[in-house]
Amino acid sequence: MITQQEYESAVTRTLQSLDSAGIVTTPQERARLEVADFGLGELEQTGLQILTYVNTDRCCAKELVMFPGQTCPEHWHPTINGTPGKEETFRCRSGAVYLYVSGEPTASAACRPPAGSETAYTAWHEIILRPGDQYTLSPDTPHWFQAGPEGAIVSEFSTRSTDEADQFRDPRIKRLPEIG
Amino acid sequence: MITQQEYESAVTRTLQSLDSAGIVTTPQERARLEVADFGLGELEQTGLQILTYVNTDRCCAKELVMFPGQTCPEHWHPTINGTPGKEETFRCRSGAVYLYVSGEPTASAACRPPAGSETAYTAWHEIILRPGDQYTLSPDTPHWFQAGPEGAIVSEFSTRSTDEADQFRDPRIKRLPEIG
Repeated sequence: MITQQEYESAVTRTLQSLDSAGIVTTPQERARLEVADFGLGELEQTGLQILTYVNTDRCCAKELVMFPGQTCPEHWHPTINGTPGKEETFRCRSGAVYLYVSGEPTASAACRPPAGSETAYTAWHEIILRPGDQYTLSPDTPHWFQAGPEGAIVSEFSTRSTDEADQFRDPRIKRLPEIG
Repeated sequence: MITQQEYESAVTRTLQSLDSAGIVTTPQERARLEVADFGLGELEQTGLQILTYVNTDRCCAKELVMFPGQTCPEHWHPTINGTPGKEETFRCRSGAVYLYVSGEPTASAACRPPAGSETAYTAWHEIILRPGDQYTLSPDTPHWFQAGPEGAIVSEFSTRSTDEADQFRDPRIKRLPEIG
């Protein structure tokens, strides 16, 4: 859970970041920004700010705004009853993002998991995305990502988002935000 | 058909436009920019510059760059043998774009079709998109669009692009570019 004050502070920082990158939003969009702390109550370390442009039955586009060093925790988008899970492409717009996916572990990975959550991070194949770089993730692929020291803006192009279907490695995580 | 020189000039202008909007691209992307004149040989009037970020079996994302007053001619994305046609969301990033879709005609529409092609334009329900505005088009919906006097950059989020399946109102049109 995050407080109303934490939510508002995160929104202000997110809007500043979008503004600096020249990404124009509408008042309606600014009023529905999502601030996800994944239920861990440590937004600076583990969290994500999300502006969903569109999410239809068939496709979805978002901007993901990350504070410096912030981590989106390890998860995957499962195939359910033969329906393929979410496929997503991450495209870095500003800053840098370190993406970790399942597969051959990278020696000397640049990032560490948030302190106290180490056991919930198992994917160590590192992909570094700087502005203009992108990477497409297949369904069912465990992945997590962390912003560099300047934060990051990442465009996500994907099939339909069904956040409630996401599977997280950390059993403490609640994906849907609670503000109180 | 457009000449190599026209192609290169259009690419230069497109890259300047993306750069002005703060949209970062890679050298590989800049080398594969698409300049579509739709076979009409009047790129300034009828044409579109396209950077496709990703186009998988399931979803697609592009930047559409338009010169001042340039028109993307009327077309639709047909449902074929029960497979739904392409669904697309246009989001204006800079400049302005006038989108015309089938439906109730708008009185005093702001745009006119390119001279000599009037009969190939039948959709007159006007939607004006300025930076931050977006519109989602269902499959099978006839539509065309024209940039305002400053040109436009439009992000397109969609299901898979299959340009060869597009149906154009103007029988002279060839969608796939020819450079000679």
